[in-house]
Amino acid sequence: MGTTSARRPAARVADLSEDRDAFSTANCSVARALEVVGTRSAMLLLREAFYGTRRFDQFARRVGVTEAVAATRLRAMVDDGLLTRTPYREPGQRTRHEYRLTRKGRELYPALVALLHWGDVWAADEIGPPVVLTHRTCGEPVHAEVRCAAGHPVTPRDVAVIAGPGLRLAQTTEDACADV
Amino acid sequence: MGTTSARRPAARVADLSEDRDAFSTANCSVARALEVVGTRSAMLLLREAFYGTRRFDQFARRVGVTEAVAATRLRAMVDDGLLTRTPYREPGQRTRHEYRLTRKGRELYPALVALLHWGDVWAADEIGPPVVLTHRTCGEPVHAEVRCAAGHPVTPRDVAVIAGPGLRLAQTTEDACADV
Repeated sequence: MGTTSARRPAARVADLSEDRDAFSTANCSVARALEVVGTRSAMLLLREAFYGTRRFDQFARRVGVTEAVAATRLRAMVDDGLLTRTPYREPGQRTRHEYRLTRKGRELYPALVALLHWGDVWAADEIGPPVVLTHRTCGEPVHAEVRCAAGHPVTPRDVAVIAGPGLRLAQTTEDACADV
Repeated sequence: MGTTSARRPAARVADLSEDRDAFSTANCSVARALEVVGTRSAMLLLREAFYGTRRFDQFARRVGVTEAVAATRLRAMVDDGLLTRTPYREPGQRTRHEYRLTRKGRELYPALVALLHWGDVWAADEIGPPVVLTHRTCGEPVHAEVRCAAGHPVTPRDVAVIAGPGLRLAQTTEDACADV
């Protein structure tokens, strides 16, 4: 039992959202994820990667960013381990590179599908969304949903926030995410 | 049958990801969603709203942004319909405002849970994530997953991208999202 548990013995079962100021968000996983995919262009490049885009010029054109922006973002995404960059060469052409999603990158699919579905419902033109994701096997539309490991669908009200192993108790206000 | 269908009769069943350049992303729902929650601070303010934060000073402190940044973002989130802003007054105090999630805001929960879960797996400190979301009823951990309407879990490979009612065929490269 570490210091944290000794000081707050009930923390592992208590719902921390009842006492929000008890814990720090310095190591918040949402903030950590946004350090990697917290820009609009990173998310849209990710969208293109899921659509099957691999070539640099296609990424830039399909997202609608300059080649300079695409180069910077794709390099960061490679450095962050979301994409691999592999050389290839077509006959008579110079060597180019293609970008492919890693497992780390592929696991952002639920986040992207959730944003797409929300955009379909709340931000599409009146005529409806441009594309629909469907399950190849059964043809049903696809979306992201929140469930527990036992398979129950859950709403925000059904969810308790409990202490994880990395919980940091809030010491000062400087503990909070500073570089937003 | 509109012009689009007449020109591309198979579009409603074809997998568009096989011919990515056939459709425009000018009205892409991911891009539309990111116009609303495409900044790091908007997402973190949303996190706080789900944690139950309602008061302006708490939002600013818990996210770790200046009051000026919090004011700008919260105002935008109210304007975008994610939050309502309601006056309240405690005895002997001046009138303050509290912010509460609307249905439109609450429906971003899957996106936020997906980012949190990804951060837990791929970006947490070695000791583990600070908090764990659990289902109040059964105690199991909660995450976001991609499923079809028939309930099948799906991976990116299982998903076809088909034309929706708002599909715009790509005319020029200027069709792509310009303001990234």
